[in-house]
Amino acid sequence: MVKVLDKELQKLKEKLLQIGALVEAQLDRSVKSLVERDSELAREVIDLDHEVNRLEVEIDEECIRLLALRQPEAGDLRFVTTAMKIVTDLERMGDLAVDISERALELNEEPVLKPYIDIPRMAGAASQMLREALDAFVNKDSELARKVLGKDDFVDELNRQIFRELLTFMIEDPHTISRAIRISYISKYLERIADHATNIAEMVVYLVEGKIIRHMM
Amino acid sequence: MVKVLDKELQKLKEKLLQIGALVEAQLDRSVKSLVERDSELAREVIDLDHEVNRLEVEIDEECIRLLALRQPEAGDLRFVTTAMKIVTDLERMGDLAVDISERALELNEEPVLKPYIDIPRMAGAASQMLREALDAFVNKDSELARKVLGKDDFVDELNRQIFRELLTFMIEDPHTISRAIRISYISKYLERIADHATNIAEMVVYLVEGKIIRHMM
Repeated sequence: MVKVLDKELQKLKEKLLQIGALVEAQLDRSVKSLVERDSELAREVIDLDHEVNRLEVEIDEECIRLLALRQPEAGDLRFVTTAMKIVTDLERMGDLAVDISERALELNEEPVLKPYIDIPRMAGAASQMLREALDAFVNKDSELARKVLGKDDFVDELNRQIFRELLTFMIEDPHTISRAIRISYISKYLERIADHATNIAEMVVYLVEGKIIRHMM
Repeated sequence: MVKVLDKELQKLKEKLLQIGALVEAQLDRSVKSLVERDSELAREVIDLDHEVNRLEVEIDEECIRLLALRQPEAGDLRFVTTAMKIVTDLERMGDLAVDISERALELNEEPVLKPYIDIPRMAGAASQMLREALDAFVNKDSELARKVLGKDDFVDELNRQIFRELLTFMIEDPHTISRAIRISYISKYLERIADHATNIAEMVVYLVEGKIIRHMM
């Protein structure tokens, strides 16, 4: 019985890594579609959403099945319930990558406001946070989770910096306002993606160490 | 045994209604603090956050305990796992009410840009969606949940309308930009609160009818 559960938990982890990789691909491509003004790529990100949603439902159902049939105990029980929460965060990160792509589609129709420098940096950090938070979960590695938490401030600071710069554009030339606001939305979406990674990392610390550190940062 | 589980599920529902009422109070007061320029009230909303966070952890732990000791089956199992997801949405709605209050504190330091008309309407709709989504959950009422889903478009439309109006202010007078952007953030936070209520309502429809309607709207 224990061996069956272990095997099933292993399969669950693989599915989580699979949806994580998909969301990471969505995120990376959404920003690439903006920077390289590639609207075709932006539409690909939007299309990928169905696959992410399908996987989310599949993982949820697998967790329910595990709880019902295997009645996991203690650490395994917490692992499964945490997986159900994490998959929701992952799916919403995918939604935010779709939001980025939609803004990219709009921006690609208009003249370039400025070269994108901080947005790709922010996306790189958020993407790494996503990957590491999920790795921390499947490997129950609270040290790695804490590393993720430390990066959230960097992303928040970049978001503020981007916003201040866009504000100067808007004040100097009102013609830039609607583009600048779209870019500020993308920056905000990236910040929210990093927040979701932070939520996941906090859950991992709680799962592994039993310490509640969410709500304390 | 069944009676013990029923009693405990009843207690779980009461706790969920309790955290829901608290978040609703946060939301209502955050908007009131903006409209009436009452910074003291804004600070109260921020202080309430600890209580919401404490309740979230308590409900999570209660759900884990129920799963471990009572091993609920079928509908009861799904009810408990859904409760664990819903409480995360509720807590994040509370965080958004805190965000609204922080923007209100900033706006209260500056001259009034315009009287707030659509923001309170939007908040009223979001607040009702929150209340009804949670009632739909504890009463397993998928009809009420579907009513909630129907309101999301209204909130989204108000958000767009507020944004268009703010854009005209910004274009006409760049001095209004930073205030207008803060107000547009508040409008966006309210839209996200309505999104969380929508997520809850979709989970209720799935719980009661077994139909996946999230990802279809």
